[in-house]
Amino acid sequence: MIYFDSAATTKPYKEVLETFNKLNDELFANPASSHLFGSKANTYLEKARNQISSLLGLNDRFNLYFTSGATESNNQAILGYCRRHKKEGNKVITSSLEHPSVTNAFKELEKEGFEVIYLNSSKEGTISLNELENALDNKTIFVSVMGVNNEVGSIFPYREIYKLVHSKSKAVFMSDLTQMIGKEKVDFNYIDMFSMSSHKVGGLKSLGLLGVVKGINIDQIIYGGEQEGGFRPGTVNMPLACSLATALRINLSSLDERRKRAKEINDYLRSKLDNNPLFEIASPIGGTPFILNIILKHTKASVLVEALSKREVYVSTRSACSSHSEGGSSVILNMGYSEFDSKNAIRMSFNGLEQKGVEQEFIKIFFEEIGKIKSI
Amino acid sequence: MIYFDSAATTKPYKEVLETFNKLNDELFANPASSHLFGSKANTYLEKARNQISSLLGLNDRFNLYFTSGATESNNQAILGYCRRHKKEGNKVITSSLEHPSVTNAFKELEKEGFEVIYLNSSKEGTISLNELENALDNKTIFVSVMGVNNEVGSIFPYREIYKLVHSKSKAVFMSDLTQMIGKEKVDFNYIDMFSMSSHKVGGLKSLGLLGVVKGINIDQIIYGGEQEGGFRPGTVNMPLACSLATALRINLSSLDERRKRAKEINDYLRSKLDNNPLFEIASPIGGTPFILNIILKHTKASVLVEALSKREVYVSTRSACSSHSEGGSSVILNMGYSEFDSKNAIRMSFNGLEQKGVEQEFIKIFFEEIGKIKSI
Repeated sequence: MIYFDSAATTKPYKEVLETFNKLNDELFANPASSHLFGSKANTYLEKARNQISSLLGLNDRFNLYFTSGATESNNQAILGYCRRHKKEGNKVITSSLEHPSVTNAFKELEKEGFEVIYLNSSKEGTISLNELENALDNKTIFVSVMGVNNEVGSIFPYREIYKLVHSKSKAVFMSDLTQMIGKEKVDFNYIDMFSMSSHKVGGLKSLGLLGVVKGINIDQIIYGGEQEGGFRPGTVNMPLACSLATALRINLSSLDERRKRAKEINDYLRSKLDNNPLFEIASPIGGTPFILNIILKHTKASVLVEALSKREVYVSTRSACSSHSEGGSSVILNMGYSEFDSKNAIRMSFNGLEQKGVEQEFIKIFFEEIGKIKSI
Repeated sequence: MIYFDSAATTKPYKEVLETFNKLNDELFANPASSHLFGSKANTYLEKARNQISSLLGLNDRFNLYFTSGATESNNQAILGYCRRHKKEGNKVITSSLEHPSVTNAFKELEKEGFEVIYLNSSKEGTISLNELENALDNKTIFVSVMGVNNEVGSIFPYREIYKLVHSKSKAVFMSDLTQMIGKEKVDFNYIDMFSMSSHKVGGLKSLGLLGVVKGINIDQIIYGGEQEGGFRPGTVNMPLACSLATALRINLSSLDERRKRAKEINDYLRSKLDNNPLFEIASPIGGTPFILNIILKHTKASVLVEALSKREVYVSTRSACSSHSEGGSSVILNMGYSEFDSKNAIRMSFNGLEQKGVEQEFIKIFFEEIGKIKSI
């Protein structure tokens, strides 16, 4: 099997499952229970929160909440902040390259009366700082721009965005870092709120983080008990939280090494696919090496993905979260490609743990299969 | 260790962890990925959904959605239905004995302009059908009454509630079955929507179910990708879903046997605690045998819980989800007990897998410890 779909999900590290199993066996108590077995579970939960905070380099600036995943974190941040602060201004800004869990939360805000600005994409899959600067004004309360794009791997200038947001408005700057953490280093001094997902960094599914700089108040979107300081009710899954600490410890300590390996694969694939009229590389130079997106100019992407799939070679047409949509990729479309192109992009994504030689094997199978498919 | 806190959370069955581990190892793909590895994961996901549906006896009447837990399920059902159908009437009805994830969702609806009726509790910890009948009218769109109370174990007359709701109004009947499934048999023909939680039935935390009778439309509360038919975005945790199927298979097939054992423990504890001026039993006769709630008439519950805790005997003061509140138990208070009583209730809860002799050991330690505590 060649798994080039790590941006959709990663295989959990075996140590992650070990942590999870051990704690489910030995310390299954509800961390909210008032007895000592419960408070021991709670101690582990808070230890995990502190470890994660320290591993990410948050420097105590942030309150860190466990959620059910990045989708919930994004919704919580966007809906929670904007609904709470609506009286201070009803203009909010995002990019036209965000994940559906960001874009669709903004669509909901539009229904609730907010003016939402969707910043255009550059050809390189990021935003124009000029356009952002022009959009910012004293009505603007919230800006959400992702760290790394999930489809093409473009890296957004979050430091510059933060500075602009804070110099030109009273808004806070939120960033969906789901595809950035574990791929690129992040300086959290330039971020007010962020989301991430455990299963993109070698952790388990069903866990997300929401980081909020202390002092920033946001509304709840789910109501109930008093867990997570009353902010996110529901029994907290301590073993899952601890397993994320394990995942991040391994994932972040190996970042340089994994990045090097991802770059090796990415460079090799680029060298074999570039300057070929059959393809156009959509991923910008300077993007993260963990994602390579190419557009098939004369071949249906879905047909190739299926053909590769039958040979146990796994790549994506676009983000897994939109894989059942009828249309093409809105990211590719918004980057200025044609509708045909947007339907025929293929994303190869890595975690930097791929075995030696896998890229050569991939290219061999890739050209064998593409050779069998009739051009459009 | 004597763990009498199964209503807060249960130890996952070892088979549940086996299922979870095997699938995380072999089939970690994102079920939404378009390649065959992803679609195989999706096949397992749908198989789990069908198995769960069949194990619960849902007879294809329901759409079944995976959520992050019963808290989210309750919020989704209550907020999602009522916001969607607000134009049809703004009156909604619940009981004054619900879990905070139900009560606080209704408090939110009050802020959004709904008239919320909180039905009074009977001395037995259920509702009066007469009061419900009088409250139902043609403005009523939604009724939510739990199946089994989480603190005292009272069983609600859901069949009669369903019949009244449908004969006296156009409302739908939702029931939080978190404490009922795995303790009492449920006839789903008398329910329109329900919630449940995996970790209360020997499954893992971070997974809930929301069942909605086909044809009933509700709004989303979380926006994003197209998972769960577009209804609940976010990467679905297939191994977790499959592990719930495993949990329910074991849990429900052993229900009669576990119930018998729970009754044995419950009867023994009652026999030792009843007719003693130190205690008053708050759990009604005819409630589920899995929960026994007693009020300490001359002792601080928190002091006893801590003392027992030090001897590795774990009971709750009240629901884990409210364990950090200042006040007493609203359930005990609403049942007509005094404020003092509401602060001094102790819940013992079982899963019916307790070892032989544990109840005798419990009573021995219980009386030793209560003897050491100065009466108030």
